[in-house]
Amino acid sequence: MASQNKLKILNDPIYGFITVPSQQIFDIIEHPYFQRLRRISQMGLSYLVYPGANHTRFHHALGCLHLMQKAVYILNYKGVEISSEEEEALYIAILLHDIGHGPFSHAMEHSIVEGVDHECISLLFMEELNKNFNQDLTLAIKMFKGSYHRRFMNQLISSQMDMDRLDYLKRDSFYTGAAEGNINSERLITMLNVVNDELVIEEKGIYSVEKFLVARRLMYWQVYLHKTSLVAEQLLIRVLRRAKELIDEGKTIKSSTALSYFLYNKVRKEDFNAEILEIFSRLDDYDIISAMKEWLDCDDFVLSNLCRMIINRELLKVKIKRKKPDALKMQKHRKKLQEKHHISEKEADYFVFSGEITNLAYKKENNTINILHKNGKISDVIKVSDQLNLKALSKTVVKYYICYPKSKH
Amino acid sequence: MASQNKLKILNDPIYGFITVPSQQIFDIIEHPYFQRLRRISQMGLSYLVYPGANHTRFHHALGCLHLMQKAVYILNYKGVEISSEEEEALYIAILLHDIGHGPFSHAMEHSIVEGVDHECISLLFMEELNKNFNQDLTLAIKMFKGSYHRRFMNQLISSQMDMDRLDYLKRDSFYTGAAEGNINSERLITMLNVVNDELVIEEKGIYSVEKFLVARRLMYWQVYLHKTSLVAEQLLIRVLRRAKELIDEGKTIKSSTALSYFLYNKVRKEDFNAEILEIFSRLDDYDIISAMKEWLDCDDFVLSNLCRMIINRELLKVKIKRKKPDALKMQKHRKKLQEKHHISEKEADYFVFSGEITNLAYKKENNTINILHKNGKISDVIKVSDQLNLKALSKTVVKYYICYPKSKH
Amino acid sequence: MASQNKLKILNDPIYGFITVPSQQIFDIIEHPYFQRLRRISQMGLSYLVYPGANHTRFHHALGCLHLMQKAVYILNYKGVEISSEEEEALYIAILLHDIGHGPFSHAMEHSIVEGVDHECISLLFMEELNKNFNQDLTLAIKMFKGSYHRRFMNQLISSQMDMDRLDYLKRDSFYTGAAEGNINSERLITMLNVVNDELVIEEKGIYSVEKFLVARRLMYWQVYLHKTSLVAEQLLIRVLRRAKELIDEGKTIKSSTALSYFLYNKVRKEDFNAEILEIFSRLDDYDIISAMKEWLDCDDFVLSNLCRMIINRELLKVKIKRKKPDALKMQKHRKKLQEKHHISEKEADYFVFSGEITNLAYKKENNTINILHKNGKISDVIKVSDQLNLKALSKTVVKYYICYPKSKH
Amino acid sequence: MASQNKLKILNDPIYGFITVPSQQIFDIIEHPYFQRLRRISQMGLSYLVYPGANHTRFHHALGCLHLMQKAVYILNYKGVEISSEEEEALYIAILLHDIGHGPFSHAMEHSIVEGVDHECISLLFMEELNKNFNQDLTLAIKMFKGSYHRRFMNQLISSQMDMDRLDYLKRDSFYTGAAEGNINSERLITMLNVVNDELVIEEKGIYSVEKFLVARRLMYWQVYLHKTSLVAEQLLIRVLRRAKELIDEGKTIKSSTALSYFLYNKVRKEDFNAEILEIFSRLDDYDIISAMKEWLDCDDFVLSNLCRMIINRELLKVKIKRKKPDALKMQKHRKKLQEKHHISEKEADYFVFSGEITNLAYKKENNTINILHKNGKISDVIKVSDQLNLKALSKTVVKYYICYPKSKH
Repeated sequence: MASQNKLKILNDPIYGFITVPSQQIFDIIEHPYFQRLRRISQMGLSYLVYPGANHTRFHHALGCLHLMQKAVYILNYKGVEISSEEEEALYIAILLHDIGHGPFSHAMEHSIVEGVDHECISLLFMEELNKNFNQDLTLAIKMFKGSYHRRFMNQLISSQMDMDRLDYLKRDSFYTGAAEGNINSERLITMLNVVNDELVIEEKGIYSVEKFLVARRLMYWQVYLHKTSLVAEQLLIRVLRRAKELIDEGKTIKSSTALSYFLYNKVRKEDFNAEILEIFSRLDDYDIISAMKEWLDCDDFVLSNLCRMIINRELLKVKIKRKKPDALKMQKHRKKLQEKHHISEKEADYFVFSGEITNLAYKKENNTINILHKNGKISDVIKVSDQLNLKALSKTVVKYYICYPKSKH
Repeated sequence: MASQNKLKILNDPIYGFITVPSQQIFDIIEHPYFQRLRRISQMGLSYLVYPGANHTRFHHALGCLHLMQKAVYILNYKGVEISSEEEEALYIAILLHDIGHGPFSHAMEHSIVEGVDHECISLLFMEELNKNFNQDLTLAIKMFKGSYHRRFMNQLISSQMDMDRLDYLKRDSFYTGAAEGNINSERLITMLNVVNDELVIEEKGIYSVEKFLVARRLMYWQVYLHKTSLVAEQLLIRVLRRAKELIDEGKTIKSSTALSYFLYNKVRKEDFNAEILEIFSRLDDYDIISAMKEWLDCDDFVLSNLCRMIINRELLKVKIKRKKPDALKMQKHRKKLQEKHHISEKEADYFVFSGEITNLAYKKENNTINILHKNGKISDVIKVSDQLNLKALSKTVVKYYICYPKSKH
Repeated sequence: MASQNKLKILNDPIYGFITVPSQQIFDIIEHPYFQRLRRISQMGLSYLVYPGANHTRFHHALGCLHLMQKAVYILNYKGVEISSEEEEALYIAILLHDIGHGPFSHAMEHSIVEGVDHECISLLFMEELNKNFNQDLTLAIKMFKGSYHRRFMNQLISSQMDMDRLDYLKRDSFYTGAAEGNINSERLITMLNVVNDELVIEEKGIYSVEKFLVARRLMYWQVYLHKTSLVAEQLLIRVLRRAKELIDEGKTIKSSTALSYFLYNKVRKEDFNAEILEIFSRLDDYDIISAMKEWLDCDDFVLSNLCRMIINRELLKVKIKRKKPDALKMQKHRKKLQEKHHISEKEADYFVFSGEITNLAYKKENNTINILHKNGKISDVIKVSDQLNLKALSKTVVKYYICYPKSKH
Repeated sequence: MASQNKLKILNDPIYGFITVPSQQIFDIIEHPYFQRLRRISQMGLSYLVYPGANHTRFHHALGCLHLMQKAVYILNYKGVEISSEEEEALYIAILLHDIGHGPFSHAMEHSIVEGVDHECISLLFMEELNKNFNQDLTLAIKMFKGSYHRRFMNQLISSQMDMDRLDYLKRDSFYTGAAEGNINSERLITMLNVVNDELVIEEKGIYSVEKFLVARRLMYWQVYLHKTSLVAEQLLIRVLRRAKELIDEGKTIKSSTALSYFLYNKVRKEDFNAEILEIFSRLDDYDIISAMKEWLDCDDFVLSNLCRMIINRELLKVKIKRKKPDALKMQKHRKKLQEKHHISEKEADYFVFSGEITNLAYKKENNTINILHKNGKISDVIKVSDQLNLKALSKTVVKYYICYPKSKH
């Protein structure tokens, strides 16, 4: 019989199949650090709006691995040399690029692990794994940090059109059913090429790039910044802040061992050692949701009500405005709530608040998407699009939201 | 402006959109009992095999509601009279048909709520809701119990080809990516008709029925009874049994308030009152998974290892056989494990065990799928299919499984 | 048995099924005038670029019928009253809106039926059918002509967001595989409403409208105006012109009876009577392609070569430019060709030519897409879109093309 | 810039993209012999039942090329050595396997090219092309003829599970919208392996094979042998026979040059030389349909009426029976028709006829589908399927049809 290589295949509703390219990558997938991603939802609380959006970071990471294989195949075909070490490193780097995400990342970064971003934790995980895998992840880490000398490889992992974005936009569009955000990732990949070590898109792909940017903008406004998700996330931030506050006041709050650690201790970036990483690796959506379910019955008015709002989906009313919200109106809502429930202004603040949201689909300062013209010239997509709309897309839009209790509450 | 009816629409990756047909149904969906289904996975631990299978019972129930609307539309079109009260009752009954499912239902029914099936609990929930909704669910309950005089309505809710099966086969096939199980639910529905108050399928739909039965069989063997899901579920049953056992021995086991109740008390069918129902309504996947995560570090060898196997996906080896497993071989595995870890035979039994699985795609005793011929005659699909294979499909198949630790463990 | 209504269902790869809402509509579909649409490709010669683009006007018309049923359902649901006569008329009007299309319409309108547009012929067909159907099409014709007093009904048939566009953009995107053009027709329809007898889109649909307009623009530039389709169509115009020219010079040209009529006679709008309509109804893609196949062997250098270019897909080279092509360069290409084949300048003109293409995704002069805000106000989508890009979309873009023989020819 | 290889990509609604693996294969695709397949419908007259079924043999051949690339990739991955010459030959052989198909092949093989099957003509085309391509097709031809020593390569081109079947079942299911026939071609391919130079399917693919065989059977009965397609094809056979008959009687019948050749001459297998092949290469759907359109007005009752039935879709009534049709009943229909139209019995025979249809999904005599078990053993799928149904699938089923005019005609 011919085969010794056992082809590891995973089903994927989007791509059909995802093949695991090597035994080493299979072993990384099997590691508990990576398996943990099965328990972290890709889109946080968005399932409260889109009942299909229960996909996980685990599945997204595998999707990225799949697209990276396509990209390597295409670039190889076009004569871009990629050694087998570089290939393996590209796969590992994209597979692990999000491994540092905690549950409901944004909410956490604004509450219990303030100031520690997920990229930083991803790097810690990768370095820890590197020890377990005989330093075989060294090149992948270099690419992840963007410091490999062949820049296009770093760009495949992180840039305006990296494999991460190409998977998550497609995947999130698929699972939410928000078909408007669907992008043609595989077509975009077939248009990739490399010039002067930089990733470029061939000229004929310009409409696909336009579509990609438009879809991305729509996904932001319609899905990621959907007002219901937004209020749910703001409530979750306040749940975790309130829990810490109560603990600081000496109250006892029941939660899982891992979550307790982060509620009872202030963890700064510089503290994040291997031991804390191990505790962090135990933390996932289940800790947060379970804690909120327990806190439903706690005797703090603020905490129990915030939890109820999320768990039973009895959210605050939210309005999106183009202008800054009127402080007086806010004050009125707050007063009304205070009187109704005999709570302090500070307590009422948990239920009446405002903020701003901003979206920038094409960030020029970061980096650009370069178009390779038939004559060999290269230019930023924003300058060569026929229409002005790409320039519009690169403009920052700011909107404001205001949240307060529904009248029946 | 014309509209006062606000059309409530939910996105669905499968059907595109699901419309909510009335304000009352919208209110039922908003009830915490129904919202709880958001936290119960439709396919239990199958996501360990199919990373896309994270869809929930919430979404499935909405899918059934969608198909029921299609069925009502088609039957109406064909001249079957359905009053608006009956229509509303059909929607409510199918929406709530699974509301009694606990987390990982099968595992629970073999461990902590032994002898209390989910249909029984669904009925309790429906009766409880009926009180909140001014007895408006009475007709729906009648249909759910199968006691409404217009039998085809009961059959739309529960029969060989009810809206439940038509949604879950399609949905599970979609999310797992096991395209072989995909069925054409909407085509089957267009073939429905009613004769003598019984649901029938028009003759031209016979190939679709064949396909439906074949797909169902494949889904059973390939997906629902996948050996990896099977071993995971068996491990979960043992986790919960072991936890109860330790509690019975006087040990303290940390878990959520709701789960603790069912671990510390033996709840029989006759005990299941409104108070217990309220506690049950707090129980979902998050309680179970969170408990297992805590128990990873407990000092009982059996419990901590069973939990680790599920959480880190380091499952037992499993083999499927056509013959009953050899007792001697089992004994050998058990002995090896006892010696390696210095554990008792009883403890080793938790890791070395066997059982049988059985599948019966078309259960004749239950009820049949009737084909309506052009000449007006009706006959069981099994008798009119050209091929013998439908008869084969109705044969019970028994297989055996045996589980034991992988050598490296 | 309940049903007397036999539900006529047609398979559709896009929508799954299309139901035929009445016996009368079924009879119209069965009429040879409508059956003829089976032999007219929806996208002309685009299949030379997109091998999947073989769908027909027949299928498109049925698709429109399907969407119109959805629209009627939604508007009804929202309380917009539509009588059963109006409903039937809407279905008939949309079904027949394109019935006057000849084969490769654009090419024909620039060659053999100059000055007779397809809307005009559609109307003739509808009036002819009206005689066969007891004047039952009168109301449909009124709507088709835009003269029914309930304007939104006319708009469902012809406007910026009529059922025609909603089907053809989706269908053409589907069959070409140009996924970038995929629009969410069904979602857009659920957002429809009626205010002051005008069709509006509810505010929450604004991103979907943006996406619709962007997708439409992309479809124009990437698919409908694809340079290869463009050159093929230009060649076809020249084939038909050349054939007429040769006939005018007294040569005999073999073609089908129907095509011959239009080649040998100059048919103007005012001549188009019932007799000519009958001949026109015999004309479809098969006449044109078959004629070109015969002409491959004719002894006119120009005609035989033009035909060969289309039939064997050995097209001219085509370049798209932003500036008007250089007359001198054109002259050089022409000269080269004349010398090579010893042909006259006039003959060479058939193979060396230029022209301009223009696209206007959102034509304001025609009519607008109105957004219905939550506060009841209505405004043109172009004024309320957050971004400037919709304004950009409404700007006319002009490009130039130049065609000449590939060097190897 | 890196790339010299210009990646040729074709859009495909099914697979997304089809890449053309080499310049030589691109040149073959550009050859007029291959371009001709654009004008030959894959499913003949089935579009009269399934309005979406307008896909061509051109697209199917490209689809096969795509799947063959997948198969080569998978087998390579599993360690099966395939040289680059063999790889190219596999691509060419599968691309050209159907090149000998005439328009409406089955109908033609029963009328104007009796006794000359399409495989034989495919071979002639391949040999002719081989001359144009420097004998580079020699190895491909060997594989196509099944005489290459590495048998699994021949099997990839022609066997129970060749790339041809894997594409056409999927493609026909897709375009007809008969979702029941959808097979998971890509999954089946990932299960391929080679043992003793024979293609095998790995054990875990057994359910997919079952599904494949069931889907194939359903496609036969529901789609390929759909009674309406069947009657249309039988009418077409009679059209061509009648035309020949009239010509034999000395009548003049207008048709295209290519079709005339085959109507006016009796072409046997042994006559089929390069010159006739060239004429045959001009023959496609357009010749046949155009001829029928012309013959609508001919003065032969039989020919004009047969043509009208197909062109206007006013087909004969057709009934499918399990028993041989009753000769007396047939006689009655014939008599009725004779009297109504004053035609001879022989003429009436053209409109009243019967026949039998047979389907054999899994032909054992031909070859088998072999399953590779984990223990290395190989066995015919029919022996190892759990259920009896595969055995049933291998049973020949015979049905009878009877056609006669609808009463209104």
